[in-house]
Amino acid sequence: MQPFRVTTSLLRQICPKRPQQVDFTSKKALNCKPSLRYNSQQSEARTSASTEPHQQSSSQLSNQPATGKAIRLTSESYPNLSRDSRYKEIDKNDIKHFRSILDNDAAILDGTSTSDVDVELESYNSDWMRKFRGQSRLVLSPNTTEQVSQILKYCNEKRLAVVPQGGNTGLVGGSTPVFDEIVISLSRMNKFRSFDNVSGILVCDAGTVLENADNYLRERDHVFPLDLGAKGTCQVGGCVATNAGGLRLLRYGSLHGNVLGLEVVLPDGTIVDDLSTLRKNNTGYDIKQLFIGSEGTIGIVTGVSIVCPQRSAAINVAYLGLSTYEHVQNAFKEAKKQLGEILSAFELMDLNSQRIFSRVTGTKLPLESEHDFYVLIETSGSDTEHDASKLERYLESVMEAEVVADGVVAQDGAQQAELWKCREGITETLGHWGAVYKYDLSIPIKDMYSLVAETRLRMSEAGLLDATGKANADDKPVVDIVGYGHMGDANIHLNIAARKWDKRVEAMLEPFVYEWVGQHKGSISAEHGLGLAKKAHVGYSKSPTMISLMQNLKTFYDPVSGTNDGGMFSCS
Amino acid sequence: MQPFRVTTSLLRQICPKRPQQVDFTSKKALNCKPSLRYNSQQSEARTSASTEPHQQSSSQLSNQPATGKAIRLTSESYPNLSRDSRYKEIDKNDIKHFRSILDNDAAILDGTSTSDVDVELESYNSDWMRKFRGQSRLVLSPNTTEQVSQILKYCNEKRLAVVPQGGNTGLVGGSTPVFDEIVISLSRMNKFRSFDNVSGILVCDAGTVLENADNYLRERDHVFPLDLGAKGTCQVGGCVATNAGGLRLLRYGSLHGNVLGLEVVLPDGTIVDDLSTLRKNNTGYDIKQLFIGSEGTIGIVTGVSIVCPQRSAAINVAYLGLSTYEHVQNAFKEAKKQLGEILSAFELMDLNSQRIFSRVTGTKLPLESEHDFYVLIETSGSDTEHDASKLERYLESVMEAEVVADGVVAQDGAQQAELWKCREGITETLGHWGAVYKYDLSIPIKDMYSLVAETRLRMSEAGLLDATGKANADDKPVVDIVGYGHMGDANIHLNIAARKWDKRVEAMLEPFVYEWVGQHKGSISAEHGLGLAKKAHVGYSKSPTMISLMQNLKTFYDPVSGTNDGGMFSCS
Repeated sequence: MQPFRVTTSLLRQICPKRPQQVDFTSKKALNCKPSLRYNSQQSEARTSASTEPHQQSSSQLSNQPATGKAIRLTSESYPNLSRDSRYKEIDKNDIKHFRSILDNDAAILDGTSTSDVDVELESYNSDWMRKFRGQSRLVLSPNTTEQVSQILKYCNEKRLAVVPQGGNTGLVGGSTPVFDEIVISLSRMNKFRSFDNVSGILVCDAGTVLENADNYLRERDHVFPLDLGAKGTCQVGGCVATNAGGLRLLRYGSLHGNVLGLEVVLPDGTIVDDLSTLRKNNTGYDIKQLFIGSEGTIGIVTGVSIVCPQRSAAINVAYLGLSTYEHVQNAFKEAKKQLGEILSAFELMDLNSQRIFSRVTGTKLPLESEHDFYVLIETSGSDTEHDASKLERYLESVMEAEVVADGVVAQDGAQQAELWKCREGITETLGHWGAVYKYDLSIPIKDMYSLVAETRLRMSEAGLLDATGKANADDKPVVDIVGYGHMGDANIHLNIAARKWDKRVEAMLEPFVYEWVGQHKGSISAEHGLGLAKKAHVGYSKSPTMISLMQNLKTFYDPVSGTNDGGMFSCS
Repeated sequence: MQPFRVTTSLLRQICPKRPQQVDFTSKKALNCKPSLRYNSQQSEARTSASTEPHQQSSSQLSNQPATGKAIRLTSESYPNLSRDSRYKEIDKNDIKHFRSILDNDAAILDGTSTSDVDVELESYNSDWMRKFRGQSRLVLSPNTTEQVSQILKYCNEKRLAVVPQGGNTGLVGGSTPVFDEIVISLSRMNKFRSFDNVSGILVCDAGTVLENADNYLRERDHVFPLDLGAKGTCQVGGCVATNAGGLRLLRYGSLHGNVLGLEVVLPDGTIVDDLSTLRKNNTGYDIKQLFIGSEGTIGIVTGVSIVCPQRSAAINVAYLGLSTYEHVQNAFKEAKKQLGEILSAFELMDLNSQRIFSRVTGTKLPLESEHDFYVLIETSGSDTEHDASKLERYLESVMEAEVVADGVVAQDGAQQAELWKCREGITETLGHWGAVYKYDLSIPIKDMYSLVAETRLRMSEAGLLDATGKANADDKPVVDIVGYGHMGDANIHLNIAARKWDKRVEAMLEPFVYEWVGQHKGSISAEHGLGLAKKAHVGYSKSPTMISLMQNLKTFYDPVSGTNDGGMFSCS
């Protein structure tokens, strides 16, 4: 797939090398159009982009060497985990009871007495990254909140371990079982309950697929205030349970602000009926907030009420080249100032990320010369002409101030999609050599990129880095170290592309990365959550006091499985 | 005070009686300017307006008959409250200990052994509405979080009751003591800790006055994402503790979305150090959310980290007349669509509210003829010309569709302020006759205004309403029933202006209003909180399950004073 090639950039036309000679007060720049060539396979226009992680299709996954092999059991990858003996094993009476709760056979995937359903079970036991694999023999798919309540009440009484599962698109092993936990799938709970087109408030079941919710809203001129690469699979309830961030956060804020109400079933079966459709409701503790980002450890979200903004009619996308991170910060500051209310994305990509993207996909980058940093800016607003004019003025000013060295502006939806691919394609292409060490970090903006540079230096000094591909993979396993992410949210993805998983690389990365983030008051998990993968590292982002408060809260809501053994969440 | 008078309205020029004859594609309407006359006392321009409640000055208060009298003790107004005997009385050793914690004499207002400080104590014991009055003899004003921690630890151990107090501008009796609780004032904790002008993240002490914070941000081209009438007095920590709503909520969302981190001291002195400056941080339960809106009942907020938007350069204000509530809803829907990202306020005022405003202040209303409903629209954005053009286009379309009957657009900041007065002045003028029954409600938009109409009918049928002022006040105490508020947030203020407090009026209002709100799935307190005033009525907005969960949470965080006696919060 080829993105468009730019022979002369709009920005160079607007702003030649010596900007002081250009009359910026005239509007002639508005008429400059770049000359563009297109590949015949033009992508559809889109209103916003997906975010890290990118949900890979199985065909994409097949490019990765690991795919052919069976996924390693999580219990083997994490040998320190052992099945909690307090939990009962499932027996025939349990199955009989679950059949009496659920209304049809399709709602039960029972592998306790047969291997006929092993293939089906596998998709619930494994994650899409093929990193985690559990050993569950039972999947229950209730389709009412009452059923979820009855199931949890029974499991709580009988001490049967459960793991709630939405679209199973998580990155940290939070939605797959480890041992024989019962998977409670929300997939059958996928109804829209109500939509008020005056207030924009949507109420839907937790199992509603995010993309379906967004399409439903699109038909009603509204937009879901969250967008993710995994939107075709992930579910609204799972997004809420993991406090998913994504791209629209810069524009519409976090789920803590947008979710107005939740319906949640507690471990003991209690239904928390806090499904308010009010933007303001100061009548006591806002308990629903606790479930946003709790990763299903203190209750199962079954219904969501969320305020959805009006869908923007006009979208503009620009792709810029900058020489230093200092310039990137200034460009962001100026974008906030000049683009203000229409700024909907400000994405950072470093040179290495763009080189890899170009190299793996065979794509020529939008700008002819190379720059140490690239930025993708998206605006969305209600008036195409106004937005284009604001963007143009912004670009003129940052070029004049020599903050931005070069850039292009997409002229239509297809070009916008092509520019977005330079950002969205990174995740996928990094997997090209077989292994990627991924860190989803939040770091105060001024320090954000230094970690990437330091990690690169560290890997180079340790003699593990070979970008040429000529060295032996065993000698120098690391292909490159790249940084990219949501600059507007101070959220950077530090990724280390490697030819193989290698203990020496791991030793260079951990605890170094976590310590660095902790020292800079960052977060070791900006948007992916803790899950199983980062549970042990929470101390780098939260104080002992906070961890203790979290442990107490887990025990408070889930006394049967809550533990105080030093882990934040009970795993199973 | 005279707002400007409009001789010919812009909108009538744009859109005469027969709109089909007007060429809406031409831009000539842009050149129409209304002819305006001004009073010499022009108000200063402002970027946004205050909200209900309006913080009254003492001179304003003196217009109210109740002012001259001493404020009734809360314990007398609420005879069912009794001092919890588990709490110890303050003795000399306690005072000595507090002196050892606090660094100077000014930090302790000690009336335990003298009456010399009675006047000073009164301002901490009473609220500005003169509705609540406690009997505290001791005010402590720590200036570090460590001091707050030491004080609470000691009080918890000794069972000394405390009440945290910010600016004391609340409306529900949540910030004043009832009996002899120690007042812990945050006023001396008023430092700005940090501001990052790239990310817009401000960290400040809880006692920072909201207006000071906004001015500090204004100098740095940013804006506090919350605005209140009481901003000159209320404190950032108090706003967070009560989850204050205000006007900017429509544009910037709630504090649950904007507050990034909190520093809180728990009842036992534990310092919750969750003062993150990250927009994304998914590393466990978001415990800080619990303190937003907890009204100081489970901890004292001492520090706040909040993300602040870029300040908008352009402000536009329009004031419109509409004939039905159906039209108001359509005008709002259309405003969201056409004004989208620049819509910053959509305020509703009914005819009665505007009549009273006009009558009491002697002000001629901006529109010549009367309309059953009025709407004030504010836009704020980064480009004056673009915003004006969007607003103009919007107004043309709603006039053409006969959704809006008439209207004016302010031509400068002074006129904007005058238009805002028609909205902001309501609260103050309602108090003219001596008594106002006030309800701050949130109701799904479609039903929102029906309650006002029903209450009016109810009062009229009971023979209690006389709008002419000719009837005897004892016979017909009610002057009028008005509805106004933040349409954009489905937040309506139902106010009943009366010549005297009257048991018959109260009987007509309660439990009627609360039952009505409960039946329509509304909130009995949209933005004011529960405090003491609404504590007993929480059941109209929260289910028994939710109330039980809240009670448990209170006991969890404050085991010493947490109660399960049916009240949501411990009062003292």
